[in-house]
Amino acid sequence: MNPQTDYGFGTTIHLPLDKAIARTKEALKAEGFGVLTEIDVRATFVEKLGVEIAPYVILGACNPTLAYQALQMEPEVGLLLPCNVTVRDDAGTSRVSVVDPDSMLGVVANPAMHAIASEAKERLQRVVAQLAAEYSNSDADNQE
Amino acid sequence: MNPQTDYGFGTTIHLPLDKAIARTKEALKAEGFGVLTEIDVRATFVEKLGVEIAPYVILGACNPTLAYQALQMEPEVGLLLPCNVTVRDDAGTSRVSVVDPDSMLGVVANPAMHAIASEAKERLQRVVAQLAAEYSNSDADNQE
Repeated sequence: MNPQTDYGFGTTIHLPLDKAIARTKEALKAEGFGVLTEIDVRATFVEKLGVEIAPYVILGACNPTLAYQALQMEPEVGLLLPCNVTVRDDAGTSRVSVVDPDSMLGVVANPAMHAIASEAKERLQRVVAQLAAEYSNSDADNQE
Repeated sequence: MNPQTDYGFGTTIHLPLDKAIARTKEALKAEGFGVLTEIDVRATFVEKLGVEIAPYVILGACNPTLAYQALQMEPEVGLLLPCNVTVRDDAGTSRVSVVDPDSMLGVVANPAMHAIASEAKERLQRVVAQLAAEYSNSDADNQE
């Protein structure tokens, strides 16, 4: 139900997918993240492969201030931006997952990058906690 | 000139940015990668922060077959997709960089994921090698 990985954290919320996506975008905005991209994974697989999966979207969330700091420090770091947020149907509820910036930016050798990753992570943890508080029966999981 | 990182590889090609982006997309397509997203980083910073950087785009490149295999194996892996390709102006030439799938998917515990990462990496290395062969004065760098 609440899959745990080493590279993300999230929560399962009691909203259908469309509402979950909209509410996730609002919660991201409150923490300074705009959604720059939105991939409809299901539609892509139907179109390209003719196979169907459960509804699944990947949002590319960017906090411009943090992204600018990171790029000034290391121009190649665009390879690791924006932060992905996935929202997918899970038997009528919606699973919202956020990539762990510590995990993503952990591959950058520059130690100063880790402070930026930590701030991004704190903000994204608040996004997940907010969604969990509003729409989940349990606390956000895998927040460490 | 050819920055090296632990998380990507690339080449600097003698094309202006617009042509470099178009040619990069063609080379990706030849290896089965469609470009699902395109972020104009420069325009985003102008709009959101009022600051200017050199032209810089982030392309989200996806090989549907490999992405489908990966998602069937581990649904959360959408947090690490698509593969980013950045193209940025470098004093009139264009720097093309590709995220290293081994580095990205290296955070996934499932060892079967590493075979998918390896195939994606081989294909993306051929993309960079092709661009370097056509438009660079030197070999692609940091291809290991």
